[in-house]
Amino acid sequence: MIVILKKEAAAKDIDSFVDGIKQRGLGVHISKGVDKTIIGLLGDTSKLSPEDFLANDIVESAERVSAPYKMASRSFHPENTVVTIGANQEGVIPCVIGDGKSLPVIAGPCSVETEEQILAAAQAVKKAGARILRGGAYKPRTSPYSFQGLGVEGIRLLEKAKKLTGLPVCTELMAISELENFENVDLIQVGARNFQNFDLLKELGKFHKPVLLKRGLSGTISELLMSAEYIMANGNENVILCERGIRTYDGYTRNCLDLSAVPYLHKVSHLPIVIDPSHACGIRWMVPVLSSAAAAAGADALEIEVHCCPEKAWSDASQQLPPSEFEKLMDKLAKYAAVEGRTL
Amino acid sequence: MIVILKKEAAAKDIDSFVDGIKQRGLGVHISKGVDKTIIGLLGDTSKLSPEDFLANDIVESAERVSAPYKMASRSFHPENTVVTIGANQEGVIPCVIGDGKSLPVIAGPCSVETEEQILAAAQAVKKAGARILRGGAYKPRTSPYSFQGLGVEGIRLLEKAKKLTGLPVCTELMAISELENFENVDLIQVGARNFQNFDLLKELGKFHKPVLLKRGLSGTISELLMSAEYIMANGNENVILCERGIRTYDGYTRNCLDLSAVPYLHKVSHLPIVIDPSHACGIRWMVPVLSSAAAAAGADALEIEVHCCPEKAWSDASQQLPPSEFEKLMDKLAKYAAVEGRTL
Amino acid sequence: MIVILKKEAAAKDIDSFVDGIKQRGLGVHISKGVDKTIIGLLGDTSKLSPEDFLANDIVESAERVSAPYKMASRSFHPENTVVTIGANQEGVIPCVIGDGKSLPVIAGPCSVETEEQILAAAQAVKKAGARILRGGAYKPRTSPYSFQGLGVEGIRLLEKAKKLTGLPVCTELMAISELENFENVDLIQVGARNFQNFDLLKELGKFHKPVLLKRGLSGTISELLMSAEYIMANGNENVILCERGIRTYDGYTRNCLDLSAVPYLHKVSHLPIVIDPSHACGIRWMVPVLSSAAAAAGADALEIEVHCCPEKAWSDASQQLPPSEFEKLMDKLAKYAAVEGRTL
Amino acid sequence: MIVILKKEAAAKDIDSFVDGIKQRGLGVHISKGVDKTIIGLLGDTSKLSPEDFLANDIVESAERVSAPYKMASRSFHPENTVVTIGANQEGVIPCVIGDGKSLPVIAGPCSVETEEQILAAAQAVKKAGARILRGGAYKPRTSPYSFQGLGVEGIRLLEKAKKLTGLPVCTELMAISELENFENVDLIQVGARNFQNFDLLKELGKFHKPVLLKRGLSGTISELLMSAEYIMANGNENVILCERGIRTYDGYTRNCLDLSAVPYLHKVSHLPIVIDPSHACGIRWMVPVLSSAAAAAGADALEIEVHCCPEKAWSDASQQLPPSEFEKLMDKLAKYAAVEGRTL
Repeated sequence: MIVILKKEAAAKDIDSFVDGIKQRGLGVHISKGVDKTIIGLLGDTSKLSPEDFLANDIVESAERVSAPYKMASRSFHPENTVVTIGANQEGVIPCVIGDGKSLPVIAGPCSVETEEQILAAAQAVKKAGARILRGGAYKPRTSPYSFQGLGVEGIRLLEKAKKLTGLPVCTELMAISELENFENVDLIQVGARNFQNFDLLKELGKFHKPVLLKRGLSGTISELLMSAEYIMANGNENVILCERGIRTYDGYTRNCLDLSAVPYLHKVSHLPIVIDPSHACGIRWMVPVLSSAAAAAGADALEIEVHCCPEKAWSDASQQLPPSEFEKLMDKLAKYAAVEGRTL
Repeated sequence: MIVILKKEAAAKDIDSFVDGIKQRGLGVHISKGVDKTIIGLLGDTSKLSPEDFLANDIVESAERVSAPYKMASRSFHPENTVVTIGANQEGVIPCVIGDGKSLPVIAGPCSVETEEQILAAAQAVKKAGARILRGGAYKPRTSPYSFQGLGVEGIRLLEKAKKLTGLPVCTELMAISELENFENVDLIQVGARNFQNFDLLKELGKFHKPVLLKRGLSGTISELLMSAEYIMANGNENVILCERGIRTYDGYTRNCLDLSAVPYLHKVSHLPIVIDPSHACGIRWMVPVLSSAAAAAGADALEIEVHCCPEKAWSDASQQLPPSEFEKLMDKLAKYAAVEGRTL
Repeated sequence: MIVILKKEAAAKDIDSFVDGIKQRGLGVHISKGVDKTIIGLLGDTSKLSPEDFLANDIVESAERVSAPYKMASRSFHPENTVVTIGANQEGVIPCVIGDGKSLPVIAGPCSVETEEQILAAAQAVKKAGARILRGGAYKPRTSPYSFQGLGVEGIRLLEKAKKLTGLPVCTELMAISELENFENVDLIQVGARNFQNFDLLKELGKFHKPVLLKRGLSGTISELLMSAEYIMANGNENVILCERGIRTYDGYTRNCLDLSAVPYLHKVSHLPIVIDPSHACGIRWMVPVLSSAAAAAGADALEIEVHCCPEKAWSDASQQLPPSEFEKLMDKLAKYAAVEGRTL
Repeated sequence: MIVILKKEAAAKDIDSFVDGIKQRGLGVHISKGVDKTIIGLLGDTSKLSPEDFLANDIVESAERVSAPYKMASRSFHPENTVVTIGANQEGVIPCVIGDGKSLPVIAGPCSVETEEQILAAAQAVKKAGARILRGGAYKPRTSPYSFQGLGVEGIRLLEKAKKLTGLPVCTELMAISELENFENVDLIQVGARNFQNFDLLKELGKFHKPVLLKRGLSGTISELLMSAEYIMANGNENVILCERGIRTYDGYTRNCLDLSAVPYLHKVSHLPIVIDPSHACGIRWMVPVLSSAAAAAGADALEIEVHCCPEKAWSDASQQLPPSEFEKLMDKLAKYAAVEGRTL
């Protein structure tokens, strides 16, 4: 943390300010310029925020020098984190995310609707080469009048699909009280709207399942990593980050896919990063080309919505791919993954 | 809902599309132009979203004509909703929000820190004319290493402050499991990060206390009203909306106070609207002038952070006002309120 | 400027980096911490930008400490700048902006359309108390097929309106080649789309007329002041800043009026600041309440679109007020201005 | 255009409104629902904007159905536009953009600094396989105190570099008055800050050189196409669009590269689209991976900044690649281009 004092700060006030910092157990470096006095804070500043200093009248500005996250930071943990989904279950084929050699695809419908629908989708995505089945049981819908998901019944249907296909399953958790139903879920998704639901994150830190943490609608990269930190600091290091489009001023796509997040997160963090092109654009025909771009950007995995009959889907009908298009996408993706020697 | 079909849509596909709509119990108006066919949907379209139609290959675009919210809409409920906070409690002075004759101020520290601190703040804000005491017991902090609030102990201290001053109290709820501790809280705040925590909203719909619902960091006005709709549709019509600054590209203030929300929400909704200038700007010296502007914009109430010793505050130190400045602000505010014949 | 070096920077590279800075005539303060080395640059850093340092492999980050603007800064020029519009012209009533005692209103139609239209509008706004007449002769339209303004003929009509009413006139300049037609224009507007048209700004720096510089659609406050600096550094200190709404993710108003800009600009700059509520919201009925809020926020002047028959206007029909509503707005505005002892 | 009338609109007012539309030479389709009356406008609505109708009291909303651009639209011109840069000049190797078979790279330094610098850069980028040389002679800098470019001398140096290497040259035009110096420039760039400098666009419409039109800092896709329309409607159909990052709320990269623009623009327009990863991220080490992603997204060409000694560059030092890294990038890019059968 660097604190810059105002030109007119009195020596006495500066001394008292510096004493206050030392009392917090921090070291201090002071640089007196002609115009400004610059104070560098040394030690563990992770509990501090720049705002803590701005209330003092002699302070002009304060800025972090070190990243506010620790456990999520690559400087803290230089090796890539590799997460295994669906390990040690009879009949289930585990999927590894973050090993640098593969580009696994998580696929399935937006919502679990009926047994027939989810089983058909599971078989279709498996046939095309997907490695994890997704499907929403609890749905975060903007309107209270929209379909809210099948709830625990949806989870039961995902379990059947897992048994049928051997694919690990991924579904979203919206409330702590439902966590008891997630014992057979292999990858627990935290949606964009809950990415700063800190109580939920803390609880997932105490649970023993990998977490797929989506970036908020207008979450910064730093906030995303701080939310990962909430989970990790509470005991669960199996966190996978997910970029799914951010909100901008232009509405030609539902959100704006921010692919720069992939190389940037790989630089500053050791956690795997998944791209969700379906929610990013919200437009079916655009999903394949964004998937290719995500592969070239170095994403560790992709999450793609697939429905056997998109025009009859109960939610997000406009962005789900039918199996025939998903198969073509997988073929193309395999070629892009191969450029870096990766397989799907 | 208006659906526009592509130029090249075949008559047969149009017929089949229209049949599908009729089967949902909706009426249809068809306008065939040279270029496009326009289909107007008649009836209750609140369960539909434009995305439901875009998956169909013959559809070019789809748009809502009616607002997606109902109970929160002024066309549904033409009279202003007036919410009373702290009614029917011995020794407590109730506060009315939304009556058009008053401009009550909710004030107090960002966080409840100690008994001494909250009691002093409560007395100071009461003396200056505030009508409701605020103070955070559960704190949504970006970092897991920052002070997370006193929790239920904070609620107990707010109760003491209420007893001492007679001011109703307002504090934030972050998790459904804590709701049992809110029996003596008079106004339950839903923070910006939880404004689309739909499970929390549903639960508050079943609770019997007024709710102060904050707009999300990048929430649209429509989303804010849909979140209010979640609470109302579940049984609680005592919802107060709060604009607290939105996220933009320019970081010279913490957020950007969007005062246009006040007249706009008054036009489309009957719910009261509160402005929170403290979180909007995050800068102490800017709070008074934004408070005056909010009064002139027609806000029904203001929420302002006040701390007896801001530079020692455990959170948001940079934006809290000391009592002396809060008193001056209240004097100025009274003059602005008086222009429209309102009192504080 | 503060430059933070990477942990792993070699002593030799640090020395060479420091030498490079000294060769640019700057002083250096070095603070070596356990983790990072912090280098403070002393002297005139206005020609440098943080990017200049980031290409060096040993640099982790670089940040400005001083503002990048000088002439526009309050620390450079502590007294408010007061600009007089329309001075020393027979029959013209000069208008002063920035004196802290008045809240003059600039009003008139979006575009100059016909002689009859502009003369009627000029008389109507004068009658209601406006102090400067606005009207677009050169129109920046998104579409090449929309009305592009009357051009020099529009300027001639504004001159007639000035003669008729004695009001100074304000109109927008879009191209340097047209500047010769602005000899009788009293306040030259630079529109949002040209706010970083640096060649135009340089030319206006050499011209002898006050400039009304609008903030860009997504211009930062710092960029606005740097654009003012372009004009001032070229010789023209009569610059008035204008906030006219910024672009955000929510489209319920055309733009988002950022009233925090008023107190912030007053803090960091000595230049007057005008609010344009008409372009900010783009909605006629919202203009009066935003005008009141702008007055309470401390704006030095307002610019409001008025048309004698808005529904027949050739551009921006939806945001122009008819004279009857403008008169009511002026009455209300006078009351808000009076709170701080100002008159219109 | 579809206009929706308010529920309470009187029959008489509707008739009068419809008559007004017919007088503009447009046809009308009327759909009367229970709640709303919907009016569809038929004919050439390109001169109208939704705002034209909103001033009428009986209008609730108005929306475009057809795109506002015509000449830039794919429905107007179904075949891809292919632009040739540097044709018919002795010793110059022409470069084709938009043919679907190639992925040419435009490369060179941010600014032309000295003869030695630009000649070295030109030779380096040619050696690595670039097809067009870029270099700024007129520089749009936020600060008036920053290096403003060599001006016409910079153009002369680009001509020398063209002669030496046979590469066509691309440089930015900032003012109409400088156009006479662009006779030997092969591709004229319009920068992000001038993308709605309509006078400049009109002038380029009358000039005979291909134009590289950059999307504004917060320009919408629709605005970008309307700016292309300004050039095309004035006679020049050789327009190439460029996405170079947009402004969002998160500043971890300088701008946010919006790769969805590539497939979207290919869908709605026939014009080629170039990606500029250097300005998008502003971070040297991120440029290669974004280049690969842009190739996979289907960009028709890339523009990449290369400087023989980036840390000594006079502008944008942090984002320019040294030749060694550019060569590696070109090798990788060739592999990604090959997936779709393209060559550099």
